[in-house]
Amino acid sequence: MKRNVIVGQSGGPTAAINSSLAGVYRTAIDRGAGKVYGMLHGIQGLMEEKYLDLSDYIQTGLDVELLKRTPAAFLGSCRYKLPEIHQDKELYEKIFAILDKLDIEAFIYIGGNDSMDTIKKLSDYAIVTGHQTRFVGCPKTIDNDLALTDHTPGFGSAAKYIGTSMKEIIRDSFCLEYSKGLVTIVEIMGRNAGWLTGSAALSKCEDCNGPDMIYLPEVPFDLQDFKEKVKKLLTKKTSVVVAVSEGIRIADGRYVCELGNSVDFVDAFGHKQLSGTASYLASFIAGELGAKTRAIELSTLQRAGSHLASRVDILEAYQVGGAAVKAADEGDSGVMVTLERTSEDPYQCQTEVKNVHKIANDEKCVPREWITKDGTYVTEEFISYVTPLIQGDVSPVMVDGIPRHLYTPKELYQK
Amino acid sequence: MKRNVIVGQSGGPTAAINSSLAGVYRTAIDRGAGKVYGMLHGIQGLMEEKYLDLSDYIQTGLDVELLKRTPAAFLGSCRYKLPEIHQDKELYEKIFAILDKLDIEAFIYIGGNDSMDTIKKLSDYAIVTGHQTRFVGCPKTIDNDLALTDHTPGFGSAAKYIGTSMKEIIRDSFCLEYSKGLVTIVEIMGRNAGWLTGSAALSKCEDCNGPDMIYLPEVPFDLQDFKEKVKKLLTKKTSVVVAVSEGIRIADGRYVCELGNSVDFVDAFGHKQLSGTASYLASFIAGELGAKTRAIELSTLQRAGSHLASRVDILEAYQVGGAAVKAADEGDSGVMVTLERTSEDPYQCQTEVKNVHKIANDEKCVPREWITKDGTYVTEEFISYVTPLIQGDVSPVMVDGIPRHLYTPKELYQK
Repeated sequence: MKRNVIVGQSGGPTAAINSSLAGVYRTAIDRGAGKVYGMLHGIQGLMEEKYLDLSDYIQTGLDVELLKRTPAAFLGSCRYKLPEIHQDKELYEKIFAILDKLDIEAFIYIGGNDSMDTIKKLSDYAIVTGHQTRFVGCPKTIDNDLALTDHTPGFGSAAKYIGTSMKEIIRDSFCLEYSKGLVTIVEIMGRNAGWLTGSAALSKCEDCNGPDMIYLPEVPFDLQDFKEKVKKLLTKKTSVVVAVSEGIRIADGRYVCELGNSVDFVDAFGHKQLSGTASYLASFIAGELGAKTRAIELSTLQRAGSHLASRVDILEAYQVGGAAVKAADEGDSGVMVTLERTSEDPYQCQTEVKNVHKIANDEKCVPREWITKDGTYVTEEFISYVTPLIQGDVSPVMVDGIPRHLYTPKELYQK
Repeated sequence: MKRNVIVGQSGGPTAAINSSLAGVYRTAIDRGAGKVYGMLHGIQGLMEEKYLDLSDYIQTGLDVELLKRTPAAFLGSCRYKLPEIHQDKELYEKIFAILDKLDIEAFIYIGGNDSMDTIKKLSDYAIVTGHQTRFVGCPKTIDNDLALTDHTPGFGSAAKYIGTSMKEIIRDSFCLEYSKGLVTIVEIMGRNAGWLTGSAALSKCEDCNGPDMIYLPEVPFDLQDFKEKVKKLLTKKTSVVVAVSEGIRIADGRYVCELGNSVDFVDAFGHKQLSGTASYLASFIAGELGAKTRAIELSTLQRAGSHLASRVDILEAYQVGGAAVKAADEGDSGVMVTLERTSEDPYQCQTEVKNVHKIANDEKCVPREWITKDGTYVTEEFISYVTPLIQGDVSPVMVDGIPRHLYTPKELYQK
């Protein structure tokens, strides 16, 4: 590389997104880049010329290791959808003027579906205008719903957190006896794709029976059938634990969380913000069956739990960051780095690059055949697919008993 | 020891309660006990002659290590308050007949305030009737609210989990920008004592500013003042993170969670089950200030998160278990093992035994002088007290990417 690189992070944060940032930074420096800039809050910050020089923050090898272990988006994130080129040509001119000013050779964007839409539009504009900057996407999402890649960095660590926490919750749920039984409903992220919720099954192992039922958003949810199944389980067990996706819907398409009185919130991409599924179901079961119930939301913790990251995930996140820079350096643009599983057993995986036009706005859900017929669990195929992605640990660097992270840029929290 | 030992677990589970069980088991065996029985679901199970022989479950040194790393109560727990002796003499006769049948020399009960009441009553009955069984209490509670002991096993691991999770949440909260700011309310356990909530301050370190405010149940909560403080913070910061105890109350004594529409549940000890404090405050702030808000309950995870246990805590939990057996073997009864901090810097701690009559039903709260004048944070003294208790890690034994625990006794989950 001869000129500069700029990198941004977009969409929901994960425990691995900063490992990709570390991979981008190190590979860019190793390949001779001048400066490596970081956009603050992604493309939205860049449009306001908010960026920093990453070398001010990453100065030593230890800094790189800390960055890999730092949860959430180090540079800040955004949920901003670029307009179509014909809708706001001036905006594109403004962005490219900033890129020219910063002498950018490669623009790397780490994100999910919506972020790949940004790469697609910017690379299209560059082609149309003959601009030389290369645009490469780097996959990231705990939801694992990106097309054309075997899986997405961020997913493995979240799955490991969910499997571990679920096992701890199940153990906790046996402790106290309630005359009519205890029903615990655990709410897990994943709006339309059940990859994370299905990962609750990772808690099923030689010393744990796993959750009793798992409800993915891919299958319509039936309240009455759910009640009957819980009722039957309570005749055999003192404690019933159920994992549900935040995005399960009843047959008419309404989200289960909409059946209660939770407040709706729609984000910039028009996605409904969901929560309250577990508490609705807990109230429902308490009312119908008289059992003691509790609702647990894994909430933000499941995406930010870097202290329990998967080593495979953190390494792959680093690799896709590096591969994105390599692709740009070798002339690719309008592509996203993907992960290809080259061997099942032993698990092996390598990076490739694919045309971002084939990826953007396409959502990969759990195949119906990886969900049991009655829709209340995942199959062995699902488990075999996920298990390699949660292997190995990344020891946190502990200082005074608490994991140490890389310093947060002041621009992120000061007004 | 010449005869048998029986051990039970009572009250809310913790990440360290099984380390105490391991300490009881190993020390009893090492001191020559015949059998070491475990009551299933504490005294409540024992009254129905539900118990197991621990040697069926703990067979190797590895089993001991797994037990130390197993969250929640391995033997099951209960929330049962013994009647006064004069109220139900027959019940006491029944319990002591079972102890005689099992040839019990020492009765060890691992629990909190309410469990020490059980030790007090049983040892009183033994004195009155000239019975030879010795009754020793072993402190346990994440709440750290037991009198006469410097701290309680279970607290350190929960505090470490809370400090770590809070740091991850704070990091996550900077990621996305909201025009009117983001306010995150994190709800932490501790009904009347703010030890756990105050531990949110452990996230404040060289790479993290910690939560903006911390509200303990020891200080009356003022909604309007809270709103004004959040409003002021939002003029300076993009994201405000507040830690609140589940048990904060307004001036007239009502719990904040009662101001919403959450359902009340009263347990066997007459304690109200609290939850919904964070979601009430999140709705309140959203309504009053128009900021984006989110409510996060650390819920069961904070007491069951054995994957992030404190080494100091797990070791001390093991030590108090062993010290309880030693005390009984040396003739003590009607006592609880306590932890005495013999040195501040370097931190050193040793076990002692104290009369359980001075402990039972007494609740140790955070001293008012360890809370800042305006009631919105803890002082340096608080931090200095807690920090030694979260030091060191206990590496989980990972199998297929998930922490391995000791097998759950079937009696706990099968009906």
